[in-house]
Amino acid sequence: MERKTLYPFIELRNGELYIEELPALEIAEKFSTPAYVYSANAFRWWFNEFNSAFSQVEHTTCFAVKANSNVWVLKLLAELGAGADTVSAGEIHRALTAGISPKKIVFAGVGKRPDEIEFALERDILMINVESESELETVNRVGEKLGKKAPIALRVNPEVDPKTHPYISTGLHEAKFGVDYERAVELYKKAKEMKWVNPVGIHFHIGSQITDTSAFGEAAEKVAELVKELHSLGIEVELFDAGGGLGVNYNPQEPPVPSEELAKQLIPAVKELGCKLILEPGRRISANAGVLLTKLLYIKRRPNKTFYIVDAGMNDLARPALYGAYHHIVPVVNKGRKTETVDVVGPICETGDILAKGRELPECSEGDILAVLSAGAYGFTMASNYNSRPRPPEILVEGSSTRVIRQRETISDLLAREF
Amino acid sequence: MERKTLYPFIELRNGELYIEELPALEIAEKFSTPAYVYSANAFRWWFNEFNSAFSQVEHTTCFAVKANSNVWVLKLLAELGAGADTVSAGEIHRALTAGISPKKIVFAGVGKRPDEIEFALERDILMINVESESELETVNRVGEKLGKKAPIALRVNPEVDPKTHPYISTGLHEAKFGVDYERAVELYKKAKEMKWVNPVGIHFHIGSQITDTSAFGEAAEKVAELVKELHSLGIEVELFDAGGGLGVNYNPQEPPVPSEELAKQLIPAVKELGCKLILEPGRRISANAGVLLTKLLYIKRRPNKTFYIVDAGMNDLARPALYGAYHHIVPVVNKGRKTETVDVVGPICETGDILAKGRELPECSEGDILAVLSAGAYGFTMASNYNSRPRPPEILVEGSSTRVIRQRETISDLLAREF
Ligand SMILES: Cc1ncc(COP(=O)(O)O)c(C=O)c1O
Ligand SMILES: Cc1ncc(COP(=O)(O)O)c(C=O)c1O
Repeated sequence: MERKTLYPFIELRNGELYIEELPALEIAEKFSTPAYVYSANAFRWWFNEFNSAFSQVEHTTCFAVKANSNVWVLKLLAELGAGADTVSAGEIHRALTAGISPKKIVFAGVGKRPDEIEFALERDILMINVESESELETVNRVGEKLGKKAPIALRVNPEVDPKTHPYISTGLHEAKFGVDYERAVELYKKAKEMKWVNPVGIHFHIGSQITDTSAFGEAAEKVAELVKELHSLGIEVELFDAGGGLGVNYNPQEPPVPSEELAKQLIPAVKELGCKLILEPGRRISANAGVLLTKLLYIKRRPNKTFYIVDAGMNDLARPALYGAYHHIVPVVNKGRKTETVDVVGPICETGDILAKGRELPECSEGDILAVLSAGAYGFTMASNYNSRPRPPEILVEGSSTRVIRQRETISDLLAREF
Repeated sequence: MERKTLYPFIELRNGELYIEELPALEIAEKFSTPAYVYSANAFRWWFNEFNSAFSQVEHTTCFAVKANSNVWVLKLLAELGAGADTVSAGEIHRALTAGISPKKIVFAGVGKRPDEIEFALERDILMINVESESELETVNRVGEKLGKKAPIALRVNPEVDPKTHPYISTGLHEAKFGVDYERAVELYKKAKEMKWVNPVGIHFHIGSQITDTSAFGEAAEKVAELVKELHSLGIEVELFDAGGGLGVNYNPQEPPVPSEELAKQLIPAVKELGCKLILEPGRRISANAGVLLTKLLYIKRRPNKTFYIVDAGMNDLARPALYGAYHHIVPVVNKGRKTETVDVVGPICETGDILAKGRELPECSEGDILAVLSAGAYGFTMASNYNSRPRPPEILVEGSSTRVIRQRETISDLLAREF
């Protein structure tokens, strides 16, 4: 048998795509399409590859729930020791439901509503990553209301350029996130004096899908300088939260950056500071643990162009339409035919509903199943009901067994809240 | 009292925003934010302004359900005589639930699944707008299965350039939609010979948010030529479906293009052909009948930039992040302060979550309510649960009464399908 690993636990066996021990075709036939399919062992593999890189320092890997918020995915990661990086009451609720200890939950986001801050404090989470002076005051007020001192970090902008897509680079002056590096000390002093706030940590997150890890090192160094200054002022910042952002290989032909490389950039700073490291990887842990299976409905040949019209659209997977993101696509059964160059497009009535433009694929036939790879992060979580389309199910594969971890929506689900 | 109409039934009274007879502030206080708020009479106004422009010819105005698919909005339009332009089984179901007669429903879309075609035929809708040769064959097969002749139109590409955003221009060769003008006659002949298909109409849709109506005239003329040829071949095309796409004024300071202008471009062709006209406006009927109310959570002042961080994000209203779309924003109470230039951004952890960039607004305070105008089309329908955020409610205002036509989602709603 010819085996070709695309990603851990996602491989071609004699040209047929397998998710762990199951042919993707069989999964598609059983659960219909479109469908998100995840490999349990792939999540574990990526989590361990990441987490073990930091084993020489005290740390918690808080999975960024926004990337994949399915409760059962979170539970699986929780069992490996993962915490959660959350950005809403909804995400905190999900993390707790999955059995993640509140002491491993951090709460970030530029627009936390007071009721969400209350929700978080009531549940005694590890810390709130505060993004502005106003928010600091709000947290203090909520703390007072509850009679609870709120453990916080300030999210600072280290002003390094992570060289990634402008939509997902977040650490620069122009962005809405965090507080300016220059103002951080002043705000920490203010926090220190507040009665209902306890500055226990510092937070930064420089962007997403970063493959040149030197930017992390640069940022960590700058933030470490700040922490030293804070320590010298008697502000006992203990948690060093370096955010997420480590990139993945969207092309299976290229190797992923080893997490070790990120570790090398971050470990010296925390060792020197004696801080505990918090990490918030999202994409890295989940992207390549999942695929989106879709059926080729119609082939349309035009004089200059061939379209493969599939049953998954931008409502199911928003990234290509939203960011122009690349997702590798493979037919789940490669019949060894010659290739052709096609646009793979969804059924949505928008020109932007394109999964792949000018892509070389083995010639397919109507009815074939295609797998859109790297769909485990920012896939289902961004799905909508646009065009009144029920959202796809999420299926978890482990070995040769499958479990529906989220049922396919029905048309009546779509209308439920209107009656 | 000083009154300034922004859009019909959406006006400023002494600087305070009213939706019909209710202050937007009161609505926000009653239902919380973010919330979509619609004016019943505004829908009526826009529908009538459009529909009456075509009164001299036999026609049906089929509202494009994708723009706003709330059942109660559809019902309100149905009462005025509207039909529905649909693109999925879900949308057909919505239209029927709203009491729209199947004989006023058309079904378009490049990726209709066979089960959706079956769903449509079983319900005896007016016609299926077929977008490819493969789909024609599929419709024929489904017709055979049901023993029902399927009334169809072919969607043709008249190849005119509507000068709009590339994402929403759909009538060019490069796009996935419809069949090439040059191949249309051949395909109609094929359809005519099929046993389970009846070519009763012709369809085109050249794009969206088109304000230069001459493109519609150009397209109508080209398609009329085709119809004449079809008629001469004994193919009795009777329904002339000119699609949607008439633009709206996203800036209330500019006047909208009168629907009369679109009518002038389309009426000569249908009169000459003796066809019945079908129209599919979406945006035009609903965009300016709705606003999205949002609360200003935090103001963040940076050296070169001020951010208004609000509680509505790209998950609630995707258009700005997805298309860079402009939405006018007004504070619901204008305290007559001086203006400042700000970025209005949402709470989502993405740099692209921006509602307005470099916008001049009257200086606001934290806690103020802002209204994002023109949110009645492609607003709620594109909303997602990204960041585990429950979707906002939809509120229908009529006179001085309000009705929740879709309840705000709860966190438990988000998890329901995972258990
Ligand atoms: C604060 C924060 N942490 C972590 C993440 C996760 O990023 P990634 O999925 O690239 O690891 C994000 C992504 O937006 C974020 O904003
Ligand atoms: C076939 C068809 N008809 C009608 C519409 C509605 O367009 P608009 O909202 O611009 O009127 C669309 C929009 O995508 C469409 O694709």
